[in-house]
Amino acid sequence: MKVLVWNENRHEQKNPKVREVYPEGIHGALRQFLEEAGHDVSTATLDEENHGLSDARLDETDVLLWWGHLSHDEVSDAWVEKVKQRVLEGMGLLVLHSGHFSKIFKTLMGTSCDLKWREADETERLWVVDPTHPIVEGIGSFIELEKEEMYGEHFDIPTPDELLLLSWFEGGEVFRSGVTYKRGRGKIFYFRPGHETYPTYHQPQIQQVIKNAVNWLAVKDTVKPTYGNHQPIASIKPKG
Amino acid sequence: MKVLVWNENRHEQKNPKVREVYPEGIHGALRQFLEEAGHDVSTATLDEENHGLSDARLDETDVLLWWGHLSHDEVSDAWVEKVKQRVLEGMGLLVLHSGHFSKIFKTLMGTSCDLKWREADETERLWVVDPTHPIVEGIGSFIELEKEEMYGEHFDIPTPDELLLLSWFEGGEVFRSGVTYKRGRGKIFYFRPGHETYPTYHQPQIQQVIKNAVNWLAVKDTVKPTYGNHQPIASIKPKG
Amino acid sequence: MKVLVWNENRHEQKNPKVREVYPEGIHGALRQFLEEAGHDVSTATLDEENHGLSDARLDETDVLLWWGHLSHDEVSDAWVEKVKQRVLEGMGLLVLHSGHFSKIFKTLMGTSCDLKWREADETERLWVVDPTHPIVEGIGSFIELEKEEMYGEHFDIPTPDELLLLSWFEGGEVFRSGVTYKRGRGKIFYFRPGHETYPTYHQPQIQQVIKNAVNWLAVKDTVKPTYGNHQPIASIKPKG
Amino acid sequence: MKVLVWNENRHEQKNPKVREVYPEGIHGALRQFLEEAGHDVSTATLDEENHGLSDARLDETDVLLWWGHLSHDEVSDAWVEKVKQRVLEGMGLLVLHSGHFSKIFKTLMGTSCDLKWREADETERLWVVDPTHPIVEGIGSFIELEKEEMYGEHFDIPTPDELLLLSWFEGGEVFRSGVTYKRGRGKIFYFRPGHETYPTYHQPQIQQVIKNAVNWLAVKDTVKPTYGNHQPIASIKPKG
Repeated sequence: MKVLVWNENRHEQKNPKVREVYPEGIHGALRQFLEEAGHDVSTATLDEENHGLSDARLDETDVLLWWGHLSHDEVSDAWVEKVKQRVLEGMGLLVLHSGHFSKIFKTLMGTSCDLKWREADETERLWVVDPTHPIVEGIGSFIELEKEEMYGEHFDIPTPDELLLLSWFEGGEVFRSGVTYKRGRGKIFYFRPGHETYPTYHQPQIQQVIKNAVNWLAVKDTVKPTYGNHQPIASIKPKG
Repeated sequence: MKVLVWNENRHEQKNPKVREVYPEGIHGALRQFLEEAGHDVSTATLDEENHGLSDARLDETDVLLWWGHLSHDEVSDAWVEKVKQRVLEGMGLLVLHSGHFSKIFKTLMGTSCDLKWREADETERLWVVDPTHPIVEGIGSFIELEKEEMYGEHFDIPTPDELLLLSWFEGGEVFRSGVTYKRGRGKIFYFRPGHETYPTYHQPQIQQVIKNAVNWLAVKDTVKPTYGNHQPIASIKPKG
Repeated sequence: MKVLVWNENRHEQKNPKVREVYPEGIHGALRQFLEEAGHDVSTATLDEENHGLSDARLDETDVLLWWGHLSHDEVSDAWVEKVKQRVLEGMGLLVLHSGHFSKIFKTLMGTSCDLKWREADETERLWVVDPTHPIVEGIGSFIELEKEEMYGEHFDIPTPDELLLLSWFEGGEVFRSGVTYKRGRGKIFYFRPGHETYPTYHQPQIQQVIKNAVNWLAVKDTVKPTYGNHQPIASIKPKG
Repeated sequence: MKVLVWNENRHEQKNPKVREVYPEGIHGALRQFLEEAGHDVSTATLDEENHGLSDARLDETDVLLWWGHLSHDEVSDAWVEKVKQRVLEGMGLLVLHSGHFSKIFKTLMGTSCDLKWREADETERLWVVDPTHPIVEGIGSFIELEKEEMYGEHFDIPTPDELLLLSWFEGGEVFRSGVTYKRGRGKIFYFRPGHETYPTYHQPQIQQVIKNAVNWLAVKDTVKPTYGNHQPIASIKPKG
């Protein structure tokens, strides 16, 4: 499967602490374990030409991962629109952590995607609330992260199609941390954890969820709907 | 309750047949039965200054109805954004018929909102599939319209929060004709029937659904969520 | 509106601490604030003849509240079946706290309704995750209860139709604490808090949620569906 | 994957027309194309000892198909309960056509599962309304069946977790014909077509949906939730 990992890649340039945790960048860390899972993975970052995107790359991508934070506004509207069209055509989209505020997520949701937040080295515990779902295979009852950024409700998203994971935060809040959506012919998964200064993407259960999600997000041989004027199939009686 | 009926009001200017069916415009027909139901109703149309909208009018509106077809593109992006913000703040939105392709509906849905269509004087029958819902009070098992435009699946919308009505069309198609959504603090109802050359909005069951919907769409004393940085409520232990 | 409050009423007989918190029984506490809200409220308890129920009482009830814990098995299957039929016909059902394990809730859900639990005088905080919903009007962003019993995920219920409240527990768990369902022509709300040794039902926000829920649960003039053999409405062509 | 096809197998004994369409029984027809798809398929029928079921067979079954019609009441409550437990533990369940009235489907739904029906050699057209779903891969925009029994709304089921297919019937009704549910750790798919006197299960698109559904219904390595008393993970402060 062709997977494209998009990362803003700015924290990595500015903050030695982030570089220490992710020497190859967040995109590099994601790329590595997805390649080990057998996928054909490439990466793209904000400061490359066209943010590292092209029509051809999007056309051949089965699943796109998106991590951004500082510079959502610098992603051009034209590329956001192209990514959106590809999602509606069937490309899977995995939005990570602060990507909740990316243009691509907000335009696909139709809401502000706002939330409460706090950076305080606090413990997060993500509880599985849907034990049937392929995305939570192999992770047990919960994932515990000793230190993470807090995201708290109200999370201004549409009602999820599926709610898979609920987070408990040490400081007193809760959050819908793993949610799925369908948009057009495409599927979307939002997965909360992944603050840039913590080694979250090195955690085996977190990697498992992301690997499961990539498999689940790929849409295969379903119909590509046609729209517009349509001839009747059954006969219509003349009316008075 | 303060209700604002927005209508494109172009068919009424161009097509004598539409004027015959709706001498006061589609907005006039909607206004009349909503006023009879006791609401404080005003109207706005595309060709008025600022499309008949103002910040003050939107601020005081509890529920907005939206009918458009020929000229969705002429509604300015700035006013679409203002209407969207009001929906997210709690203003109800009732999108009618060809309003499925309006900018405001598409931006709140995040999808193309495309569909199949046909004008062929064919019979439509809307079946109630949710007998618990206030929006379908008082209309019985189904609504039959002798002649309507056909809209057929696939209707490219997100999974509805609630599916209330399913249409059968004489020519062989089906359609999700009454669907609800939540966006931010606001509620949305999309209601399919209402082609401009048919007397659909004079039909008592159709009026009943619209009156019910207006009542259901109003959000009253729920919380206005706050977002952003949030102090801990419970104590957080120092980590190593 | 006619409201019937059903309570097992056994803890009140056995445990002086419960009697101290609820001198009139849990049913008495619920009755009082629902009467003050203008409803016509009556009560029924397990040890009355037919558990205090009759066909006539059920027929005239708009909304039934159900609190049970120690003795779910002593509720006769025949009465559970009668209550279920009334829910399917349109009677609202508000299931409280340990009522998650009542026969009536389990038969309407189709699942075990099991969960994790702990009695440890711990703090619960119920966060509003749906700011559009009438059931959470007037309570602000969250409800905090200094001491409650813990219920933790996984809660073995079907996917809720609506998720309104998520609980955070001091000891580390989360829970879907306010969920709605539709069954037949009836609506159901499950509301988690209410352990018998704590003054939870005296808390104003908790009372507000219950009063809101009673209003929301009543189904009015929707269709009573008919089933069985059905004559065609449109003509069917003879086939070869 | 281990697949068990359960069939009532009574029409086949009584009605030569059914035997002509399904010489090996409906279970035989289902078995054949599922074996060709590579599954390890066995069958069970009502009149075998224990309806052909055993604890061992259920324990090893990944997905169970269920077709019944005339004699739902003859399936013993004890075996219905065992099947239900296995679904809650993670066995997939594919309920076919008149199985909507089986004890196992009704107990998992919590509703009457009633509907309108008619046998009139009429055309059915099942439209895909979810182009993202693996169950509708490879079937195009719709399935047309020249002659089928009609099932019409209102179909008294809980709100589906996913709605995949909507039927149009020549005589004027519509129906939610492909719906999914989660119950406990198990997944359920109800698929409407399959009247015993029509060659529906020989139709390639129908077979494709059933093969897709069997793959989708299998739950693999997700958590087996534990319930009951639970020790705190975080520390709880003593209260006054």
